[in-house]
Amino acid sequence: MDFEAFFKGELEGLHEEGRYRVFADLERQRGNFPRATRYTENGQQDVTVWCSNDYLGMGQNAQVIEAMKDAIDHCGAGAGGTRNISGTNHYHVLLERELADLHGKESALIFTSGYISNWAALGTLGQKIPGLIIFSDALNHASMIEGIRYAKCERVIWKHNDIKDLEAKLAAADPKAPKLIAFESVYSMDGDIAPIKEICDLADKYGAMTYLDEVHAVGMYGAHGGGIAEREGLMDRLTIIEGTLGKAFGVMGGYITGSTALCDFIRSFASGFIFTTALPPSLAAGAVASIRHLKTSQLERFAHQERVRRLRSMLDARGIPHMPNPSHIVPVMVGDAAKCKWISDLLLDNFGIYVQPINYPTVPKKTERLRITPTPLHSDGDMEHLVGALHQLWSRCALARAVA
Amino acid sequence: MDFEAFFKGELEGLHEEGRYRVFADLERQRGNFPRATRYTENGQQDVTVWCSNDYLGMGQNAQVIEAMKDAIDHCGAGAGGTRNISGTNHYHVLLERELADLHGKESALIFTSGYISNWAALGTLGQKIPGLIIFSDALNHASMIEGIRYAKCERVIWKHNDIKDLEAKLAAADPKAPKLIAFESVYSMDGDIAPIKEICDLADKYGAMTYLDEVHAVGMYGAHGGGIAEREGLMDRLTIIEGTLGKAFGVMGGYITGSTALCDFIRSFASGFIFTTALPPSLAAGAVASIRHLKTSQLERFAHQERVRRLRSMLDARGIPHMPNPSHIVPVMVGDAAKCKWISDLLLDNFGIYVQPINYPTVPKKTERLRITPTPLHSDGDMEHLVGALHQLWSRCALARAVA
Repeated sequence: MDFEAFFKGELEGLHEEGRYRVFADLERQRGNFPRATRYTENGQQDVTVWCSNDYLGMGQNAQVIEAMKDAIDHCGAGAGGTRNISGTNHYHVLLERELADLHGKESALIFTSGYISNWAALGTLGQKIPGLIIFSDALNHASMIEGIRYAKCERVIWKHNDIKDLEAKLAAADPKAPKLIAFESVYSMDGDIAPIKEICDLADKYGAMTYLDEVHAVGMYGAHGGGIAEREGLMDRLTIIEGTLGKAFGVMGGYITGSTALCDFIRSFASGFIFTTALPPSLAAGAVASIRHLKTSQLERFAHQERVRRLRSMLDARGIPHMPNPSHIVPVMVGDAAKCKWISDLLLDNFGIYVQPINYPTVPKKTERLRITPTPLHSDGDMEHLVGALHQLWSRCALARAVA
Repeated sequence: MDFEAFFKGELEGLHEEGRYRVFADLERQRGNFPRATRYTENGQQDVTVWCSNDYLGMGQNAQVIEAMKDAIDHCGAGAGGTRNISGTNHYHVLLERELADLHGKESALIFTSGYISNWAALGTLGQKIPGLIIFSDALNHASMIEGIRYAKCERVIWKHNDIKDLEAKLAAADPKAPKLIAFESVYSMDGDIAPIKEICDLADKYGAMTYLDEVHAVGMYGAHGGGIAEREGLMDRLTIIEGTLGKAFGVMGGYITGSTALCDFIRSFASGFIFTTALPPSLAAGAVASIRHLKTSQLERFAHQERVRRLRSMLDARGIPHMPNPSHIVPVMVGDAAKCKWISDLLLDNFGIYVQPINYPTVPKKTERLRITPTPLHSDGDMEHLVGALHQLWSRCALARAVA
């Protein structure tokens, strides 16, 4: 077989479908967030980033920065090993305590990424608990889907955020089988929020564990940044809360929180936890600083929510259609893959506005969009520039306006 | 089902089998490598780490440290997104160029860990290439095994480092089927080295791709730290060379190198690459500094090899049995799980020597060992202290001595 020809052919297919991804080569400018320098073949360009998952700008927070540099000065660059073989650093221990406290759980376990935390935790639970059935929301993230596949246990997909469908499927399953309901709080692409309380009620009724992915909520919701479950007073009803250190906390890494026995169980059996180099001390130290800051400071959360409301009202004023949702994610709907890419290219090249187009298969066809994430550090001027540019492009593209 | 009772029961089983892992809570002392502070319930203790995978002490290298801190000052803490959605940083681009150059390949692709690079690359190749058969060395790392399982393609396990067995299995397979041979250069636990040339010859004969994991070799072997394949002048014969930034390079992260089409193919289709937050700029910057340093400096490699020879000769002089191998990994053989743990505990508590016991299932029963990794920064005094302690414990434990 001519492997090179095969790879080229597959890539050609992506080009033809308009799905080939070109990464924007950026250099974030510290102290000047959300500004970045974009490197192109023709030189450099200043851009404003409008699609970062550093939702609160904590990647630029002075305490986080100093904590990371201090840890490097103190301990050096990497962890030097797996958690078991010389890689556990005191910063990991502190971080796990901080996370357990954040979610009101007995214990926490950190992973190298949110992806791995979902994959390893769900995979291990499904492999090890005999007869486990995992009930998975239809729009769960790729990492949860891969984890559930990895589990090789029975899986039941329930309609997205549909409590009736979930109950019908729980009721139809063997009453004696152990069960786990896996879902997210804030869904990344539509920004909608799960009915957590109702899901927990069903879990109680049917004796199921609950696994809640809060990666798009931690740091941003709840009085201490514990996420949607904290805001709604539901943290104690969830068996496992999973989160990330790489979005609102501004660093990198993932985690689960739960009972001591559960975290110890995953720690002891999950291949993706055991056989990998631990997070560098500096990342753990930065995450501790970020979590601690957001446990007490409401400033970032209030400013974030105000900026989101303001952007929505400015979009409304110009008739730019965006999907209504109760979160901080503002999906501006284009509904056409080619136009979505075209608008995004023009925003970048002509306006210095960077917002990645979101096309199929990340979202269904005809729902192609610009996924805009305002942060506390986007100014009124930034917003006027963005909405003005969208207004111009909407006209040039002959795209439908929303009716107020 | 009582989930808590289930988790506790499974953990109890590990305790009974002597397989329950307790992590040493360490704080590496920068500028004082391989020294670390160990945190215990009774206070702190200074220890010498003898089991780090920071094989050359590059985690403490001044250029690496400064590069990381500079990147933090320049860009902030995290990447802020996936590679596709605002997370690509200019340091990633530079790092991928550096890695492609290191291995003499057209292109490179970085992942959040070596584990993920193996899992995602092997999994994606196996899933996407119709009819692919993966021929996997019997002692391949957990991440490769999980990647091959994830691929769901046909897999054939060949006897460890056994060319005859590999050829018999290649010859027995459908001649028309696309094939890939997956193996490591230096195997972590025994420190033995694969016959790379002979495997490449077989790959040519049977039209197979080759996938070489060099995680325990990059930085340490070859004139530029390109690994065993560089040392043997074989880099151009391998389809894919996979490596890590978390061991000899002293930071964190994993990568593959290969043709432009191959790397672009994995970039475009691998879930574990696409749907995860990118490495922080500081880690990429530190890795670039480390790779560049080790491309030109032979100092660390020479000192490393001298230290390994010296430790072996000191062990020989005291009759402490260690597995002969051509690498830098010194497995001191105990051959009993309980004694292995006991020696390790005494080394730590009474001698301030930290070396993690390696028991089943990481190695076969009766081959339990202390996996010792001397670095250029272990002094003669450190070695005398280690070998003296082992000498005492060998007598107290009534363990067999090696005959010179």
